[in-house]
Amino acid sequence: MIISTIGSHSALQLLYGAKQEKLKTKVYCLEGKEALYRRYPVAGEIITLSSYEDLLNLKPERDEIFIPHGTLITALGEKISEIPFKIFGNREGMIWEMQRKKNIKLLENAGIRTPKTFSPNEIKSLSIVKFPGAKGGAGYFLCSSSDEFEEKLSEILSSKTITEEDAKTTQIQEYITGVTMYPHYFHSLIYDRVEMLGIDRRYETNADALGRLSQNQTAINPSYKVVGNQPLIARESLLPQILDYGDRLITASQKLFPPGLIGPFCIEMAITPEEIVAFEFTSRIVAGTSLYISGSPYSKFLFGDEMSMARRIARELKMAMGQKRLEEFLS
Amino acid sequence: MIISTIGSHSALQLLYGAKQEKLKTKVYCLEGKEALYRRYPVAGEIITLSSYEDLLNLKPERDEIFIPHGTLITALGEKISEIPFKIFGNREGMIWEMQRKKNIKLLENAGIRTPKTFSPNEIKSLSIVKFPGAKGGAGYFLCSSSDEFEEKLSEILSSKTITEEDAKTTQIQEYITGVTMYPHYFHSLIYDRVEMLGIDRRYETNADALGRLSQNQTAINPSYKVVGNQPLIARESLLPQILDYGDRLITASQKLFPPGLIGPFCIEMAITPEEIVAFEFTSRIVAGTSLYISGSPYSKFLFGDEMSMARRIARELKMAMGQKRLEEFLS
Amino acid sequence: MIISTIGSHSALQLLYGAKQEKLKTKVYCLEGKEALYRRYPVAGEIITLSSYEDLLNLKPERDEIFIPHGTLITALGEKISEIPFKIFGNREGMIWEMQRKKNIKLLENAGIRTPKTFSPNEIKSLSIVKFPGAKGGAGYFLCSSSDEFEEKLSEILSSKTITEEDAKTTQIQEYITGVTMYPHYFHSLIYDRVEMLGIDRRYETNADALGRLSQNQTAINPSYKVVGNQPLIARESLLPQILDYGDRLITASQKLFPPGLIGPFCIEMAITPEEIVAFEFTSRIVAGTSLYISGSPYSKFLFGDEMSMARRIARELKMAMGQKRLEEFLS
Repeated sequence: MIISTIGSHSALQLLYGAKQEKLKTKVYCLEGKEALYRRYPVAGEIITLSSYEDLLNLKPERDEIFIPHGTLITALGEKISEIPFKIFGNREGMIWEMQRKKNIKLLENAGIRTPKTFSPNEIKSLSIVKFPGAKGGAGYFLCSSSDEFEEKLSEILSSKTITEEDAKTTQIQEYITGVTMYPHYFHSLIYDRVEMLGIDRRYETNADALGRLSQNQTAINPSYKVVGNQPLIARESLLPQILDYGDRLITASQKLFPPGLIGPFCIEMAITPEEIVAFEFTSRIVAGTSLYISGSPYSKFLFGDEMSMARRIARELKMAMGQKRLEEFLS
Repeated sequence: MIISTIGSHSALQLLYGAKQEKLKTKVYCLEGKEALYRRYPVAGEIITLSSYEDLLNLKPERDEIFIPHGTLITALGEKISEIPFKIFGNREGMIWEMQRKKNIKLLENAGIRTPKTFSPNEIKSLSIVKFPGAKGGAGYFLCSSSDEFEEKLSEILSSKTITEEDAKTTQIQEYITGVTMYPHYFHSLIYDRVEMLGIDRRYETNADALGRLSQNQTAINPSYKVVGNQPLIARESLLPQILDYGDRLITASQKLFPPGLIGPFCIEMAITPEEIVAFEFTSRIVAGTSLYISGSPYSKFLFGDEMSMARRIARELKMAMGQKRLEEFLS
Repeated sequence: MIISTIGSHSALQLLYGAKQEKLKTKVYCLEGKEALYRRYPVAGEIITLSSYEDLLNLKPERDEIFIPHGTLITALGEKISEIPFKIFGNREGMIWEMQRKKNIKLLENAGIRTPKTFSPNEIKSLSIVKFPGAKGGAGYFLCSSSDEFEEKLSEILSSKTITEEDAKTTQIQEYITGVTMYPHYFHSLIYDRVEMLGIDRRYETNADALGRLSQNQTAINPSYKVVGNQPLIARESLLPQILDYGDRLITASQKLFPPGLIGPFCIEMAITPEEIVAFEFTSRIVAGTSLYISGSPYSKFLFGDEMSMARRIARELKMAMGQKRLEEFLS
């Protein structure tokens, strides 16, 4: 078996985890991006692509299994369904991840609390305004009333941060004043269970820099570009609900797009003093799992040895092959 | 020897650590809370309780040693002294932990700097107002003057967050604008020393979410519900004072309630640019220790192998048994 | 070979790492500071100094190699060049580190983006004002205009936090509203490469405490005393630039002070949504490396086993000795 992926996001982990399980590895890199995978020597083979679209025309090796991650989704969007590779997991899940309405629909079908959404004239409490149409989430702002919304929207339009076109995709969401938590789940078909293997919080610029400013500084609008991850454990009494959210998401996914989510997934959460609120789900490995190359406190309870998410994937695939069930895991 | 505890707080760690030391394990769970201890298979035996008060009427096994933690204290309060189990550590220490005045008294007797307390008409600088009588620390607020205090108190009373009765327990404390740090100490009778095995910071909602808001948002009162923990190391030049605080606390505890604190304890600290200020102490394992299932940087220096606080407890008990000194460690 | 250092900063790690590589260890401690190195038993030998200046008059052992760290630089300043020890790394690099102008010059020569500097009448956006002449970075403040600068400067002068003399060293820098990141580099002569072995963020008081305050509290000026470190990983797509910064710094250092930087170094960064900005470089081990006594996610990819920065140093020195190239590594 050869484990392959594209060179970005969590590729170092994915390749290293496969190596730990004695599998062969291959990484597809954009031209100029190969160096990282030479400096950290985790790839058995490095293939150079001139663009990610090349993936659509490649002929994979017979026993090659491709592990998708966030960069694949950003790079190919819905063309993901045309990739001529055997992909670990359910491609349909990735489509549900990338379409905002489907993403929320899955959470709601799972009975998971999500933020309320408002129309411009309904804003009465702290809300976050997003423009899914704009590039890279540009122009996000916070406001607490309809007047403040109108004022800030004109401001941001006149600054050309977003276009009139982008403004048509405006989405107004209840701002959850809670701390974020990103549990790393793994749906194992081999063991027929959902495992929770680690938790991180995302380190976002400039949002995570604002708290270090004195309160009397010029107001700065937060932005939320993820540039890193920090390790975290959850209060033990929260774990039952966190695990329950994972179970529910799997059950709902099996109804909405059978056979549902397979392998790694994430539910992005904020925790307030009263409740756990989910923003979105992710249908594949998240980058924060790379904190736990040597295992996390949670993976330790389950596996004892050093079990990263990547190694967990490789282990599952090896067992699937041993049981001649590999086809169930691929799409 | 059988290590037992109740299913919450740091139970996963406690059971896993005991298993690492080849001891038998048992967990007492509230009805409906057993699933977590099946999903992470760390318990040799799971006993279901209909309420924590059941613990008062159970007949422990002959060689069973019960490890107390935070949930036990919250659930049973001073009834802790009636539990028919052999408990690791000094029950008297738990009484000193849970009574706010005794808690501060121990710190003061140890010569450790604690926050100043004020009466309402003495408030001249940033202060935090607490209502120990209210449920779960509800109603905490910050203020900087006596006028602001009166204003916010009426506000919070009229919002029914606290009752007139709660308001009688008002406690006003100097607000320490410093970063928090929670060292995990272990008082070993076997080695006659205080070890510092790891440090965490608590991840609190919504306090740790406020810094991500732009400064011009509606003011939000911070709340301090702990929902997780983050790993941390201290500047090496702070370690002598951190260790000294631990030593002093043990010495003071031996005078105030002999034989004093035994095993794991914590001193909750905030560090300002000028000094280390302690808020309270904890007489038993704290949940942040669960970050270090595979050991922390500090435990590594002492033990080399993977030494969590839970495993440290199990190791100490095994050595105590080997030296036929077990009775000294129990109460 | 005997590895020695002074007892502070990252000494516990340095001694432990040398021990892991089966080298002898020695620590020089100020009187009264020895206890820490007895409690964590990592030192083969403890030598007491009455002041760090004693180092200038000591006679090192024949095969003793001294590992410099931050405390050495603070304690001895430019007298570092007179120490009669064989020091691991390039002493000249330490001089470049400690002189603010040289520090920035190296970064600029490496083509690395640094914050802009302003004169008082040029301030138009959020800026940070520093007084390198003042003790321990006292008096730092933020301002957004020339008027605000003048106002705050008089305030701070009249409060005697800084002197008129200190005010002559005023340095005004663009404030980078980005999250901080401190990659731990190692320039290996043995492998002729720059390795990136881990990343931390510094935990600073009171800056990292301000975000937990409600926005309507009295304004508090941030201070930046480092009291700890928190683990972090970077988004994988940032790694190429982070590694490139490391490569460039080495190349520039080889031109400016041949043979350039050797062994561990750091580039202190803030990451905004748009770019990576470097504040300064460090020519030797940074304290944040002590997070990774058991290895980091990045060191794992390179070495598999538990490779701290300290152990990496010891390993390099052992290999240098094996290849009879030790002199190249010392100064």
